[in-house]
Amino acid sequence: MNKVVETILAHRSVRKFENRPLTKEQIETIVRCAQAGSTSSYVQAFSIIGVTDYKKKKQLAEIAGNQMYVADCGHLFVFCADLHRHEVIGEMEKSDVIPSIESTEKFMVSVIDATIAAQNAALAAESMGLGICYIGGIRNDLNAVNEILDIPSRVIPLFGMVVGYPVKINQQKPRLPLEHVYSENGYQQNESEYINQLEDYNKTVQEYYIKRTNGKRNDTWTSQVAKTFEKQSRMYMQDYVKNQGLNKR
Amino acid sequence: MNKVVETILAHRSVRKFENRPLTKEQIETIVRCAQAGSTSSYVQAFSIIGVTDYKKKKQLAEIAGNQMYVADCGHLFVFCADLHRHEVIGEMEKSDVIPSIESTEKFMVSVIDATIAAQNAALAAESMGLGICYIGGIRNDLNAVNEILDIPSRVIPLFGMVVGYPVKINQQKPRLPLEHVYSENGYQQNESEYINQLEDYNKTVQEYYIKRTNGKRNDTWTSQVAKTFEKQSRMYMQDYVKNQGLNKR
Repeated sequence: MNKVVETILAHRSVRKFENRPLTKEQIETIVRCAQAGSTSSYVQAFSIIGVTDYKKKKQLAEIAGNQMYVADCGHLFVFCADLHRHEVIGEMEKSDVIPSIESTEKFMVSVIDATIAAQNAALAAESMGLGICYIGGIRNDLNAVNEILDIPSRVIPLFGMVVGYPVKINQQKPRLPLEHVYSENGYQQNESEYINQLEDYNKTVQEYYIKRTNGKRNDTWTSQVAKTFEKQSRMYMQDYVKNQGLNKR
Repeated sequence: MNKVVETILAHRSVRKFENRPLTKEQIETIVRCAQAGSTSSYVQAFSIIGVTDYKKKKQLAEIAGNQMYVADCGHLFVFCADLHRHEVIGEMEKSDVIPSIESTEKFMVSVIDATIAAQNAALAAESMGLGICYIGGIRNDLNAVNEILDIPSRVIPLFGMVVGYPVKINQQKPRLPLEHVYSENGYQQNESEYINQLEDYNKTVQEYYIKRTNGKRNDTWTSQVAKTFEKQSRMYMQDYVKNQGLNKR
């Protein structure tokens, strides 16, 4: 197993950090790695905001469900799907770029570009002995995030990423069986086998929770997912994204 | 610079491969790495399809604009945003998961989860001496892709990824200046500085093309982006995604 595969397979989210900021060099390496990833048709449809102002970090931590490690970490990045740049370019080049910018296709391109960049950043950080956690919780209230970070139209802050020196290393959560996630030449169609795989996996996840919590927690994966999906969280997202001028046509 | 950062910064897309398939072990390592990435609330909202049937590979290559390296590579992966699994779970758990599944929020979650997985796969492959290229071109006709790969509802094939032993290594395309992509405590708001950065970058990209093509090509980045966005490609995407039962509310 080479170093890269080792780093990838060793991933776990870190939610408790030393009070020690990242250096300018570390931040720069992480951002350069983010930029080095693939980008659809070379459009580079993302931006990254580093948050160092403690008041702003605290506001973002509150939005993310009062997760204080969002403020108390080595560095907080916010990854944005960004087509604002392309609107400015339309003006520079006197070119009608608006229908494209507002399309679901380009919305997907910008989310994909930003996420490729983010995962490169995550692995770069982890390779330097730092821990990371994606903070989807900022999507609890993106209108507030817009205010805090001066987000212009055509830009969506997708998630935060906390980075820092880990204090506590969690166990890895077991993943779905490989044959459930990967199939060849077509989507896996045998529904009863599909359900069997989920039931087997439920046992694995249950054992993991029982062991980790000394028996206090014993939920299965499917019950957990059902609970998450029942909640109907962030149903304002469709309107928010349209108001930002994306995913409109 | 450690091995991981080195691998990330050495990325370039590869579009010409030896006629040498990946081994079962290589494929398995790549998929395990894909699965090891972060996933929003542990929902694991993606699937991966490996395409080995040459007829299907050729059909996908044609959809992607007759790019024959899509068929002629070591292995072709297709990464899918996948909420089909969560619909099945809703039935298993007798839970109303449909409004969530159809939300723009969960559509974003599934695109982000699939892309984190894909970028892990890309880096794992590159660390093993293989080359990769994301194939957004399959989005030229996802209705046809649905037929070829038996894609059920609540699933969107986002992109392909060709992997294999490189025959030709391209140069790296210069990225936007770091200070254009990364700002602190807010989105970069100084519009005239923003445009200056783009104009400087245009010179860098122009020099790159002149050098690479012996003067035959000399376009700037902004002219290239304007041309890409003028085209209004894949405007069927909004309807397609809704027909698949995602991004509806």
